[in-house]
Amino acid sequence: MTENAAVLAAVDWGTSRFRLWLLDAEGRALALSQGPEGLEAGRRLGFEAVLRDHLSRLSAPETLPVLICGMAGSHQGWIEAPYVDLPASLDRVAEAVVPVPGIGLDVRIVPGLAKRDQSAPDVMRGEETQLMGVAAGAPTGAPTGANGGAMPGRMQLCLPGTHSKWVALDGRRVEDFTSYLTGELYALLSRHSILRHSLTGVDAEAGIQVDPDNPVFAAALERALAAPERLLSALFSIRAAGLLDGLAGVDAAARLSGVLIGAEVATALDRGDGPAAVTLVASGGMARLYGAALAAAGAVVTTVDADRAVCAGLMAVASKDAAGGPARRRA
Amino acid sequence: MTENAAVLAAVDWGTSRFRLWLLDAEGRALALSQGPEGLEAGRRLGFEAVLRDHLSRLSAPETLPVLICGMAGSHQGWIEAPYVDLPASLDRVAEAVVPVPGIGLDVRIVPGLAKRDQSAPDVMRGEETQLMGVAAGAPTGAPTGANGGAMPGRMQLCLPGTHSKWVALDGRRVEDFTSYLTGELYALLSRHSILRHSLTGVDAEAGIQVDPDNPVFAAALERALAAPERLLSALFSIRAAGLLDGLAGVDAAARLSGVLIGAEVATALDRGDGPAAVTLVASGGMARLYGAALAAAGAVVTTVDADRAVCAGLMAVASKDAAGGPARRRA
Repeated sequence: MTENAAVLAAVDWGTSRFRLWLLDAEGRALALSQGPEGLEAGRRLGFEAVLRDHLSRLSAPETLPVLICGMAGSHQGWIEAPYVDLPASLDRVAEAVVPVPGIGLDVRIVPGLAKRDQSAPDVMRGEETQLMGVAAGAPTGAPTGANGGAMPGRMQLCLPGTHSKWVALDGRRVEDFTSYLTGELYALLSRHSILRHSLTGVDAEAGIQVDPDNPVFAAALERALAAPERLLSALFSIRAAGLLDGLAGVDAAARLSGVLIGAEVATALDRGDGPAAVTLVASGGMARLYGAALAAAGAVVTTVDADRAVCAGLMAVASKDAAGGPARRRA
Repeated sequence: MTENAAVLAAVDWGTSRFRLWLLDAEGRALALSQGPEGLEAGRRLGFEAVLRDHLSRLSAPETLPVLICGMAGSHQGWIEAPYVDLPASLDRVAEAVVPVPGIGLDVRIVPGLAKRDQSAPDVMRGEETQLMGVAAGAPTGAPTGANGGAMPGRMQLCLPGTHSKWVALDGRRVEDFTSYLTGELYALLSRHSILRHSLTGVDAEAGIQVDPDNPVFAAALERALAAPERLLSALFSIRAAGLLDGLAGVDAAARLSGVLIGAEVATALDRGDGPAAVTLVASGGMARLYGAALAAAGAVVTTVDADRAVCAGLMAVASKDAAGGPARRRA
């Protein structure tokens, strides 16, 4: 139904989910097909089969270029797209896109970034594409100038998630980034730890779902911002509060969320001289929780929708990669 | 075989294991029966049945007094032994022992301690008994005087484990304590998190089993002691080191251990004016790892064997509880 206008199939292929958007020449999402077929499912079912299934659900033509970011490019993925090392220009990332040969489809995979630092090495796959989307001027509130994408000076970005990333971007150059195990730790603790006995009635499978206006979240956040080094004891005290004070399940979840997000923000936020300015790349509940946390930490926040950033990033790569943009390929 | 000399069956009934020692009048362990029948098994199989099974394995007479510490006294346990609130004299804990009625055995359960603090509540069950053992002058290197158990002044104690406890003891008075989720987090991360892909060949079920002389442990420890607030990113960097540097599984485990123990020690250690003095209540590999961590943090360490501390504590309670000591009961 929409294939006439589509110029790109933009795919975010993560550890635990698959999302494919059909984008028009202006980068607008015409249709979305998504499912739980993450990295493991790709390995089990075959990456090509999963991709073709989603393309056919949207009646996409075989000739439509497909651009993928995320774990499909990992060593355990479809085709390894080797990391680009820091410091890295976003243009270099776009140039290093790796084609998947011999399948009768035009599929390319965006590489991730690596920080090769002996004491604190780090990697990302997927977020580099969001960075390109932000740099290209993602539609919602992106702090870019009117010059069509060039970034003015240094930016600090926060990309919350299973493994939250904090990035120092200078123009189109990624200077540094650091990952935090925040989201995964929330999931592990709420499902498997002693804290699960205190998070009664909370759907642990649903991820962080906490009301940012819950005063229990705000109080835990404030303590964690003031003393992020107390994480290990702050976690146990959630259980003790359940035992001694009858802390409700929804409040235990709020407290857990505040403890973890507060510890992340307090450690990651580069306050510099004046008030910290942070570009938050997030959607939905995560955007609200991190927005509240960043505000509580005194940061000035600009929010960019994470899904739009992915699409804009893939669109930017497609129009820049060495083989030419999607329009040329369709010719 | 040993029942002639036994005056007490001393039981440490934890979340995941059961241990019963037969003790003679001098508190020496004559025999040990242990198994995986922790709190859950007690609830499923019946606490009395589990206890009688272990007593019969050691051919203990029905008249032998039994004293239990640990989770058997929790709300979900056999008989609830309500928490004694902080600040608490260890004598008060001994007085608050709760008998299990109507089973034809002389069974008593030691209560735990609670810190009722709105922002950082805390609880312990089992460690209070180890504290009594230390205060009574546990055999191995306990820093007590020749006065038979009275503690000279303030002590800082570290009791590592699934939920490590750090305790401020003033004479026989527990002034404060704080729990750290260190051991449980190690288990969760090594079994269920993305880090499990880096801990290849490591038996995650065996708990922390790391060589304290491994330089990877020492390096991770040093970084964590210097910056305990970086825990969430230090955890992710273990995975990145696996991907980028081919970090070996045993070294990934050492790094995880160093990150977690270092964060705990750096936060918990009260350095006071001079060098910190810590009484470490631990056994085996845990004693070596925490000993190394405390030394790296500049603390002067006295180590008390944790199992001996439990036995000495239960012996001390048995000789003090309101109904009279074990010798009197046997008459």
